[in-house]
Amino acid sequence: MQRGHTVFFENRPKIVATATVAGPKECAGIVGGYVDLPLSDDMYGESTFERAERKMFLAAVERSIEKADITQHEVDAILAGDLLNQIISASFTARETGMPFLGIYSACSTMSEGLLLGAVLTDGGYAENVVAATGSHFSSAERQYRYPLELGTTRPPQSQWTVTGAGSAIISRKGGGPAITCGTVGRVIDYGVSDVNNMGAAMAPAAADTILTHLKDTGREPGYYDLILTGDLGALGSRIVKDLVWEKGQDIFPNHVDCGEIVYKVIEDEFQGGSGAGCSAVVLNSYIYDKMKRGELKRILFVATGALLSTVSSGQGDTIPCIAHAVAIEADTAGEA
Amino acid sequence: MQRGHTVFFENRPKIVATATVAGPKECAGIVGGYVDLPLSDDMYGESTFERAERKMFLAAVERSIEKADITQHEVDAILAGDLLNQIISASFTARETGMPFLGIYSACSTMSEGLLLGAVLTDGGYAENVVAATGSHFSSAERQYRYPLELGTTRPPQSQWTVTGAGSAIISRKGGGPAITCGTVGRVIDYGVSDVNNMGAAMAPAAADTILTHLKDTGREPGYYDLILTGDLGALGSRIVKDLVWEKGQDIFPNHVDCGEIVYKVIEDEFQGGSGAGCSAVVLNSYIYDKMKRGELKRILFVATGALLSTVSSGQGDTIPCIAHAVAIEADTAGEA
Repeated sequence: MQRGHTVFFENRPKIVATATVAGPKECAGIVGGYVDLPLSDDMYGESTFERAERKMFLAAVERSIEKADITQHEVDAILAGDLLNQIISASFTARETGMPFLGIYSACSTMSEGLLLGAVLTDGGYAENVVAATGSHFSSAERQYRYPLELGTTRPPQSQWTVTGAGSAIISRKGGGPAITCGTVGRVIDYGVSDVNNMGAAMAPAAADTILTHLKDTGREPGYYDLILTGDLGALGSRIVKDLVWEKGQDIFPNHVDCGEIVYKVIEDEFQGGSGAGCSAVVLNSYIYDKMKRGELKRILFVATGALLSTVSSGQGDTIPCIAHAVAIEADTAGEA
Repeated sequence: MQRGHTVFFENRPKIVATATVAGPKECAGIVGGYVDLPLSDDMYGESTFERAERKMFLAAVERSIEKADITQHEVDAILAGDLLNQIISASFTARETGMPFLGIYSACSTMSEGLLLGAVLTDGGYAENVVAATGSHFSSAERQYRYPLELGTTRPPQSQWTVTGAGSAIISRKGGGPAITCGTVGRVIDYGVSDVNNMGAAMAPAAADTILTHLKDTGREPGYYDLILTGDLGALGSRIVKDLVWEKGQDIFPNHVDCGEIVYKVIEDEFQGGSGAGCSAVVLNSYIYDKMKRGELKRILFVATGALLSTVSSGQGDTIPCIAHAVAIEADTAGEA
């Protein structure tokens, strides 16, 4: 069923298991106690950053399948993508597992696009079990999007730190766990920001647009949710999204939190906080999922945010198009959506 | 409904309209009489190849919406991707249209992934109208994946020529036109080919795997289809896929054609023929769609093929992981699938 840009899942597909891998800097923070595979070295025994990223990705996917107590043959599709050119982390992970693969790209909003499409496939009876996964690595992202680390380029104060980590969720028609009850497909929003070090400001309008569209389509107040969790706006972007939503007559100040804002132990060290596809993937699939399983959070709106730029588009003078997809995740015992 | 890796669409969503744009070299060939916007100059009035690619993409999407006689507001989602890093052609197209955007990446199999997911969304009642679109540009692909054209690098005989063109299809729950009756999600297959100039050989095993899986899941013989249309294997890959399928006991020699093999007027000029996400998108959405509308083709299996490499994965010594997704497209008047 759909209304506006929002699709509703009447069969309430469940997130039956999740798994995460994260680097040492990430595990020093709030997610440290919840990550399945905390790394002591972000090279993860590999020879390149890209191979380390891929290994994290595969480890998260395999661990989530184990935790769901299913086999890889019971997975009907893996919906995955990442930040590297041609989403090689996801593609090579899919190669290793042999599972049917649907590649997606939505930059740092990949986790919510994967959950949304995974819910469509399972809710509609097109799949029993689907994996939604993504990840990122600080060092592979820096050298692809910005500068090689060896240059020692100074980071400006509006910048964020790409999370080294991967997260994977198993969405199933049957079984227990928090349910995905609806999802809102984002539009591409571009307010004209062209500073590639200021992703929070670029992405905040997309997050605001999706949150407002979601509230309109569902007829819900922001207070319906215990938590409205954006992906990786960071401290600056987080303030902007709250203001933008407020200007349109909705108040998310009491219950909005951004994954990028909370992921690191001392946010000031990373200027505006965490970013990257792995940021919201790790926070959602470890710390937040645990809180939902325990009943400490009953209803959340997960709004991962993505900046759809490339070095070529920026180099050719384009501004940064951004997007955010939202999924409502509700405790299995909650009332009907 | 699903069986194996194949999903079935009981409501038979229709491809109600398609549109294509293609460059002068492409329009000299078989698709020339069917392309909506044949270009006399592959720069399309833009200052860079990437901007020309994007303009083709947008033009194909807009024209397909016009031909479907709907407005952009009636489109519930655009499923699109392309070969450029971070799928910027698709993302910037989505920005211009303002439609809800689900970015996908499956290299040159993007068209069939888009049709498959578009059929899921419409068949399942999650959308009324969906756009599936992709495209490519010879010159932007060359400089991103291989060498800048200015270098004048010699092309080896096993190489193919990336199609300059874009194609867009409108999938709707209602209306007339060929129906998407089922689709098979591909797995990533890698036979160890590492020659980035020999995509046909790399991708053929993935195409064979998906075709065989599809036949097994559906219980159909190859002869069920008037045409089994692969994406961009070219002449060499086309021979390989027929042999690989034959070795497994199925015969697609009588009714297999590859888009890359037929797209150019004189295939020898381009060695193995056409490639690129635009190759199968242009051939399917112009020439083939026209034949289906006229009843000259009643049932086709469209198997676009993609090579999921990046310059980084190749540079780090990896082989080429490949994928193929299949969709069965059947004339509206055909019997039940």
